[in-house]
Amino acid sequence: METLNVALGGRTYPIHIGGGLIERSELLLPHLRQPKVAVVSNTTVAALYLARFVSSLRAAGVDVAEIVLPDGEQFKNWQTLNEIFDALLERRCERSTTLIAFGGGVVGDMTGFAAACYQRGMPFIQVPTTLLAQVDSSIGGKTAINHPRGKNMIGAFHQPRLVLADTDLLVTLPERELRGGLAEVIKIGLIRDSAFFAWLEDHLEKLLARDPATLQYAISRACANKAEVVAADEHEQGERALLNLGHTFGHAIETGMGYGHWLHGEAVAAGTMMAVELSRLMGWISDAEHERCERLFMRAGLPVFGPALGAKTYLELMQHDKKVQDGQMRLILLEGIGRAVVSSRASPAEIAEAIGARSAHV
Amino acid sequence: METLNVALGGRTYPIHIGGGLIERSELLLPHLRQPKVAVVSNTTVAALYLARFVSSLRAAGVDVAEIVLPDGEQFKNWQTLNEIFDALLERRCERSTTLIAFGGGVVGDMTGFAAACYQRGMPFIQVPTTLLAQVDSSIGGKTAINHPRGKNMIGAFHQPRLVLADTDLLVTLPERELRGGLAEVIKIGLIRDSAFFAWLEDHLEKLLARDPATLQYAISRACANKAEVVAADEHEQGERALLNLGHTFGHAIETGMGYGHWLHGEAVAAGTMMAVELSRLMGWISDAEHERCERLFMRAGLPVFGPALGAKTYLELMQHDKKVQDGQMRLILLEGIGRAVVSSRASPAEIAEAIGARSAHV
Repeated sequence: METLNVALGGRTYPIHIGGGLIERSELLLPHLRQPKVAVVSNTTVAALYLARFVSSLRAAGVDVAEIVLPDGEQFKNWQTLNEIFDALLERRCERSTTLIAFGGGVVGDMTGFAAACYQRGMPFIQVPTTLLAQVDSSIGGKTAINHPRGKNMIGAFHQPRLVLADTDLLVTLPERELRGGLAEVIKIGLIRDSAFFAWLEDHLEKLLARDPATLQYAISRACANKAEVVAADEHEQGERALLNLGHTFGHAIETGMGYGHWLHGEAVAAGTMMAVELSRLMGWISDAEHERCERLFMRAGLPVFGPALGAKTYLELMQHDKKVQDGQMRLILLEGIGRAVVSSRASPAEIAEAIGARSAHV
Repeated sequence: METLNVALGGRTYPIHIGGGLIERSELLLPHLRQPKVAVVSNTTVAALYLARFVSSLRAAGVDVAEIVLPDGEQFKNWQTLNEIFDALLERRCERSTTLIAFGGGVVGDMTGFAAACYQRGMPFIQVPTTLLAQVDSSIGGKTAINHPRGKNMIGAFHQPRLVLADTDLLVTLPERELRGGLAEVIKIGLIRDSAFFAWLEDHLEKLLARDPATLQYAISRACANKAEVVAADEHEQGERALLNLGHTFGHAIETGMGYGHWLHGEAVAAGTMMAVELSRLMGWISDAEHERCERLFMRAGLPVFGPALGAKTYLELMQHDKKVQDGQMRLILLEGIGRAVVSSRASPAEIAEAIGARSAHV
């Protein structure tokens, strides 16, 4: 087991990464304020792993309530969030009870937001079960639900007390979800770690083959990068915005197609290629760098073109992006592999051109 | 105009109290991050005052979106909150747009919660239009919506940038709402300001007659007390819990009767009398103090007995209180007029006895 920290002063918390962690209740116990938790999961993960996780907690004397939600991005909404609140009240959970997210990004985002709001804030723990959640969404305290007009539009910053990434669980992860998670891993390299990007170029096949040591290394390096950024800029006043590379385009894809059709990671891959395309169009990166990006996403089996929504629809959906300021879009672009910047210099015409070059046509 | 401050370091904000304030846009302008606001109100307040408020902002060059909600505690729920989010997205409000609550406690609590969650947090301003909101709910950053099983169960701490209490608006306040607001004023005296309680005994008729100077004094003294408590304990780790005097009982009344039947202030009056009854039962306050409390609430036209829910139902509803810890109820009781304490020393039987003595019987 390897341990990293997200350094946030008095709210600093550990990320444990390794095999067999969901049965090691001793890792969780020191972080509970009372011997009572509510574990939120989805039908898919619950069928595979919930009994094992819960029985290890119960054996340690913890009172555990189980809350199992339907699986999929299309359920990341008010209705499902309310199911969590209903269950918490039903089971008399208190302000000191700990809420545990046991699932992928959707479960983590929704559970975190429920914890931020229930009785105006209760402690929570992330136990991410997908590659995407282990490398990205479980870290940093961004929680949210979707609105029909905008992805992650309603949410809160609420940091977990602990992140427990059990890499053994990745064995049963569907192929498509594994590839989706790799999109966020590649994204981290592109933003701020060109050596990691090169390492990914060398090790992609081993990652796709789920070689345990290679996976663990990739997860831990991605986490270390993310933890550093979050510690430096918790509330996204500056540098943290860079982690949104590909996300303004990607959120437009997810919202435009209807939540649940494209996986988040797939939308991020295609969205990142739009940002890469735009960066080349602006003359900021070379053809060779552009090609390295495209090739790596393709080798990972990820889409490098967005769906045929039409540039006008893309631009409209992107207007709801949280980075828009005084009506002006701010995008994350590249000045090179490993060097992302926030910029509002691209004109709507240039953005539309990049979208056109990187999406299927109607 | 009188100005008090809620001292919260870098997030310190002013409370302006006086007449004619809603037309003084210069008081708001310095607190806006962009010349764009969304004003949330309800049908009742909007019909009387929204045009005046909004036109003064528009005259100052501010882009104003208007969001008018139905009026009443029964609308303080997810559905209405979603109407705010829909409107914010419809009107392309950004993370830097300011949300303004222009109404009573329900509008303030819901608007504040919407501001806490929209794009993970946007600035907001309170312009309270009822006595209850001016003396209590607009100050301190507690925001929430109700859950069918528990009042204010889902919410956040999110401080406003400014509170603007225009006392002229109280002229049109329905009599019943004025009395409801007085419950929170009396509560403040009971908790920590016995001299203010005595002043209220001397000036109650003038308050009920809405004498402007007397009202302004009462509002400002209540605000000063509340601001002091909030500054000392923003997130209710200690002293701030005292402000909940009468609220555990009162929330049970509101939830048990169905939101909207009892005004919040009415439930707080009857709930406070239950706490006063229990304090006497424990031998902590005298018969004479008990009588002073009852007499003042009665003179204010407020209920001093709760509805006939039955002690069992009261106790069940109170189990969802946010102060419950490890299954144990914590109540705010009195050791004297002006001296409230948090205590878990009352037994369920004693609590039931106080409820029985202070509620109508089935």
